[in-house]
Amino acid sequence: MDTQTIGCVKAATKILGDKWTPQILRFFVNERSVRFCQVQDLVDGINPRTLSARLDSLEKEGIIVKTATTSENRCEYSLTEKGEALLPILKDMDAWSRQYEPVSA
Amino acid sequence: MDTQTIGCVKAATKILGDKWTPQILRFFVNERSVRFCQVQDLVDGINPRTLSARLDSLEKEGIIVKTATTSENRCEYSLTEKGEALLPILKDMDAWSRQYEPVSA
Repeated sequence: MDTQTIGCVKAATKILGDKWTPQILRFFVNERSVRFCQVQDLVDGINPRTLSARLDSLEKEGIIVKTATTSENRCEYSLTEKGEALLPILKDMDAWSRQYEPVSA
Repeated sequence: MDTQTIGCVKAATKILGDKWTPQILRFFVNERSVRFCQVQDLVDGINPRTLSARLDSLEKEGIIVKTATTSENRCEYSLTEKGEALLPILKDMDAWSRQYEPVSA
């Protein structure tokens, strides 16, 4: 069995292999930057502590960066180049979900 | 924020949002069917009980089917059409892993 051809999905699985992270990242397909409360509103059922931990982890992994917004003392998150390279995967995950589990999705 | 454009990655996340499942499924990129022991040998660090639970779950979700082999009393697993539709995602996860984390991957 040739394991070299598709040798390792581990690094991507470390990021995407989590119940919440793909749901957090999908917002970046349409938005250049998002605020904490926007993600919290739209990721159904996530609690703030979990969201905060996931965002910290994504920042540490170099997937997103936290930047200060011009107005007020707020922070926004945006994708790095490494994070943007995940978007085609998220789009495919979305397409697959629509095609094969339209009801439960 | 338009959440409809990429509305839901949930169904795919239910399958791929797991430490082991992408690593199990990647073998099907190169192989039409695999045996339990082949997967166990090549998924680094998985224990048989976990592998068995993941394969059962993938079968229940309609991603793989278990078939009897002609020789001996062995079973093989192969992808359904729904499972094959995951392969492009796995290929992209592999490409991302190679590009961004070649050392740890």
